Amino acid sequence: MRYYMGPDVWAATVADIDAAGHERVESLAEAEVFVNTASDPAQTPEIPDNIQWVQYCFTGVNRHIEAGLIRRDGLPWCNSAGAFAKPVAESALGLMLSQAHHHKAFALAKSWSVARELDESQAWLYDQQGPTRVLIVGAGGIGKQLMAYLAPFGAHITAVNRSGRPVEGADVTLPIERVDEAWDKADFVVSILPATEATEAFFDADTFRAMKRSAVFINVGRGSTVVTDDLVDALRTGEIAGAGLEVMDPEPLPDGHPLYELPNATLTPHMAASDHVAQYHLGAIFNANAAAWERGEDMPTRVDPDAGY
Amino acid sequence: MRYYMGPDVWAATVADIDAAGHERVESLAEAEVFVNTASDPAQTPEIPDNIQWVQYCFTGVNRHIEAGLIRRDGLPWCNSAGAFAKPVAESALGLMLSQAHHHKAFALAKSWSVARELDESQAWLYDQQGPTRVLIVGAGGIGKQLMAYLAPFGAHITAVNRSGRPVEGADVTLPIERVDEAWDKADFVVSILPATEATEAFFDADTFRAMKRSAVFINVGRGSTVVTDDLVDALRTGEIAGAGLEVMDPEPLPDGHPLYELPNATLTPHMAASDHVAQYHLGAIFNANAAAWERGEDMPTRVDPDAGY
Repeated sequence: MRYYMGPDVWAATVADIDAAGHERVESLAEAEVFVNTASDPAQTPEIPDNIQWVQYCFTGVNRHIEAGLIRRDGLPWCNSAGAFAKPVAESALGLMLSQAHHHKAFALAKSWSVARELDESQAWLYDQQGPTRVLIVGAGGIGKQLMAYLAPFGAHITAVNRSGRPVEGADVTLPIERVDEAWDKADFVVSILPATEATEAFFDADTFRAMKRSAVFINVGRGSTVVTDDLVDALRTGEIAGAGLEVMDPEPLPDGHPLYELPNATLTPHMAASDHVAQYHLGAIFNANAAAWERGEDMPTRVDPDAGY
Repeated sequence: MRYYMGPDVWAATVADIDAAGHERVESLAEAEVFVNTASDPAQTPEIPDNIQWVQYCFTGVNRHIEAGLIRRDGLPWCNSAGAFAKPVAESALGLMLSQAHHHKAFALAKSWSVARELDESQAWLYDQQGPTRVLIVGAGGIGKQLMAYLAPFGAHITAVNRSGRPVEGADVTLPIERVDEAWDKADFVVSILPATEATEAFFDADTFRAMKRSAVFINVGRGSTVVTDDLVDALRTGEIAGAGLEVMDPEPLPDGHPLYELPNATLTPHMAASDHVAQYHLGAIFNANAAAWERGEDMPTRVDPDAGY
């Protein structure tokens, strides 16, 4: 198909798309598809009638839906769901291990005098005293990739999704309505929830209180799903043992925020699914969507504005 | 067999040994085997003639050999080789991911202002632009376990051992004499070398200079294998991108040491193979050695004082 990519042109992505036989053109007016490399909805240009669908280069589209850019009766938009399965799952695993092994606590302490205390309180992913139990809330493509990374550790996986339909590779699957049954069994709780109305402030004082005191909470979904002040309290009082956050609320986290100082809050600045990463993955997503469109089939990553993703 | 465990008694280990039918006694004089839970050679008691062999509860025995406690013509000693495969391999993977994803740099910066710089310089284990290449120097039991953890990332593994005999699961195996061929191809260099005369100061200015500037160096073997000042220089000048160290030289690392301040040196205070971890694994090692001894076979973890481990 003829596509226009903008405002930025991602060379690695262009190479992958052109290799599949598509043709890049220099303006929206000449194109059939708009490949939108801006994440800010305010940067979306007027889209002319010749454009048949839009390929958005990131995953979260809640702001585009709120802004009326993606509508049920409007132009089809596809997002990059799945493009980030490997990097985001890797980010999650890294945060799990780094927090469990107290990397930040030792980095801030800068002293061997804390070694014994850290040793005695560290957690493990491998089956030291039976399988470690990992609860994955929002178990889609990223969750499945994380399960693949966790498999060699012998971890026991409880997957939570909307339908409760069994997730391949999980030991147990629960529908989101039944997630409360799982809090007090999990050694690690990993959230991969998208930002929707239903998930806003999903993790609050009640959920942290329901978790084990030894639990490590990981968020690689969206910051708005967590009440940050409640998480800070839970980490300070020892209601949970630690957190690993690739996303947080607010972003950017302002200088001086208490999360920076907490030795049991491991942070990365939302960089597992950045444009720097996306450029290596978007080509395959676009090509799959374009192939489906040309065959008249459902595009694999078409956004459902009612669901919010 | 009748065994005496001391100076400390590890309850989890006793349970595992007794479950295999062995009997714990209260003094060395009554025992057939001495289960030695002290890591310091100076704490080794006089061993009476009724003791048939010693089960040492840690791995590194170079100081015991130097002190003449373990001799070719002396009592057989077994160490805990293999007991720590899972925790040490997990420690290595955690350090690889944490360093690659800049956890310490962000922990020390405490500011989102570094986010873009961190994003653009982070490394990945998954096959973002083809397989990530991992060089494992000293690829025994821990190395094989690490390979299992790396398998889902699609990493390309070069294993280095003494003999050059192919290591199962590695893409390439090299004898240690040929390791120089591998430095400039590796994205991650993981050392699991034991402390012996041959490995002392193995990693120095020359080896770091031979590595890629983007390389991440991991040490979960022994601190004495690295010239620490050379490593600090390589990290400061950008000769390599980063390091993850579970062991270092000296230990304990004194307060004020430059490694604490370097944002690209991720540290853990030698706690992947501590007594806190060992207690859950030693039982199985002892039971395997005892079974072999009773059958008149070679004990699986018997120390070779000439090799140094």
